[in-house]
Amino acid sequence: MAQQTAGRQSARVLCLSGGIGGAKLALGLYRVLDPWELAVLSNTGDDFEHFGLYISPDLDTVMYTLAGENNIEQGWGRAGETWTFIEQMQRLGGATWFRLGDGDLAIHMRRTELLGQGKKLGEITAELCHRLNVEADLLPMSDDPVRTVVATADGRELMFQHYLVRELAEPVAREFRYVGADQARPNPHLLSLLQEPGLQAIVICPSNPYVSIDPILAVPGIRDALKACQAPIVAVSPIVGGQAIKGPLAKMLAEQQLPVNALTIAECYQDLLSGFVLDIQDAELATALKIPARVTNTVMLSLQDRENLARTVLEFARELGA
Amino acid sequence: MAQQTAGRQSARVLCLSGGIGGAKLALGLYRVLDPWELAVLSNTGDDFEHFGLYISPDLDTVMYTLAGENNIEQGWGRAGETWTFIEQMQRLGGATWFRLGDGDLAIHMRRTELLGQGKKLGEITAELCHRLNVEADLLPMSDDPVRTVVATADGRELMFQHYLVRELAEPVAREFRYVGADQARPNPHLLSLLQEPGLQAIVICPSNPYVSIDPILAVPGIRDALKACQAPIVAVSPIVGGQAIKGPLAKMLAEQQLPVNALTIAECYQDLLSGFVLDIQDAELATALKIPARVTNTVMLSLQDRENLARTVLEFARELGA
Repeated sequence: MAQQTAGRQSARVLCLSGGIGGAKLALGLYRVLDPWELAVLSNTGDDFEHFGLYISPDLDTVMYTLAGENNIEQGWGRAGETWTFIEQMQRLGGATWFRLGDGDLAIHMRRTELLGQGKKLGEITAELCHRLNVEADLLPMSDDPVRTVVATADGRELMFQHYLVRELAEPVAREFRYVGADQARPNPHLLSLLQEPGLQAIVICPSNPYVSIDPILAVPGIRDALKACQAPIVAVSPIVGGQAIKGPLAKMLAEQQLPVNALTIAECYQDLLSGFVLDIQDAELATALKIPARVTNTVMLSLQDRENLARTVLEFARELGA
Repeated sequence: MAQQTAGRQSARVLCLSGGIGGAKLALGLYRVLDPWELAVLSNTGDDFEHFGLYISPDLDTVMYTLAGENNIEQGWGRAGETWTFIEQMQRLGGATWFRLGDGDLAIHMRRTELLGQGKKLGEITAELCHRLNVEADLLPMSDDPVRTVVATADGRELMFQHYLVRELAEPVAREFRYVGADQARPNPHLLSLLQEPGLQAIVICPSNPYVSIDPILAVPGIRDALKACQAPIVAVSPIVGGQAIKGPLAKMLAEQQLPVNALTIAECYQDLLSGFVLDIQDAELATALKIPARVTNTVMLSLQDRENLARTVLEFARELGA
């Protein structure tokens, strides 16, 4: 197994990320920094078991994205994927709602095997990153299980992937619970990283607060350690022009009776933030914030967009930290 | 789940089969009979767990072959298979000695899932056959675990797939053990089938006696029920002209200090057989047999060869049963 951080400098920038949207900015940061300068703290609240496999959707999305192997057209999964497994599974009458790609299966199966050998999720993630030539430190928020559960208006408790993928995020969400969070311990590398004087910025990626960032913050010790950290904390709004770039966030905000705009996102993190980044479409909201704001293009269509946003965020953090 | 045999006539011909060689004759029988007339009693001594999946190589080979979906060029696995999984597994540093195809994975994963739900291997096999439109009754020899272990000259005990695939059958085999056989019960449909007056023939396919047929016969009750059955039992030699058509049988016979010829095979089953089928290359051995012999082409290169051999074997059995 690869050593996680031993023998090399610790990261200078930490970003908190969920899946697709967060991974876009993580990739921008990875490209404008030296690879070793970035650590990504990844949500594992989406993790679940399927066909006996331990699946970590956000970790995998970040890993494939930083490796340059994500499927850009499809928006999720591996580039150049084949689908023979799921076609056969359909013929055999098994579950096909979670579209497992043939190559993607290898990562789930290898991870499950290593977990079965008693390895920790963090160690395994470091090993898989090493194999995929990802040089950033990808840190699962915890080695312990935390499961995001969506309590629905019709009285059900859905595992997040069941809510999102199997039920297409159609049920009305009343509440989000992070089952197991109270027993979970933070990733062992995180707390020491947050005490490093060399840490220059913490970035909350444009991810869903309820199901990507809050699960991370629900792990006891993480929120306090972020607050205590000397580095400025900057969040980028995942809501642009009253809509979510990706996923069910706008629907969730509406179901929580909250305004679907960037200010609501800023309020989610208000005790943590040094500054907030809004899209140019939402420039007029900046004056309503009680913290420093930076207005820029946050819609990341191209690789250049990702790098530009990363540079702006880092520059903003540098100013805030000065 | 599909019902295994309920509501339809029971089979008229039972064949005992291992993997590739046996499946060729099973396919011939399947094609010259009405599909429902054939039952295949399959070795499960090769079954093993890999990446947490329950893998049944001989059952799968027979199933794919009868479904017309076996990979003829390769000699094993599925036709039209893709290999993205194993390529990725190689990159990730996992085990690749057992070449799991992408579509093949679906059958292992589905079987493992259904076993986890408490279903029996026989029920699951019936369900999978139904999904693949295989109309013969494919009967695993037992729902209970039996594991063929090869005791090697260098003092090791190797699971059969480890011996055959991982170690390329290179170790010298001293002994074959069928671990768990003493506790295993015969497939529940087998004993009633053997008592059916409509059963016309039992065919021991040209499979490896040590690692394909003996594991079946090691399940308590199967050998006695075969002996007590009124239908004639005919075996086809897997050794032709002093060589095995496929696999390590010739090497195994030599390592047992036994003559590498068809007579040795006939002796393996001597207490059971009504007749024995030899290849035309071995015609001169027929006179040395103490039981009726039939000499014919047993080398099944074409589909026509498979059907011709099946017809000859059935005709021979009919004569013996008259």
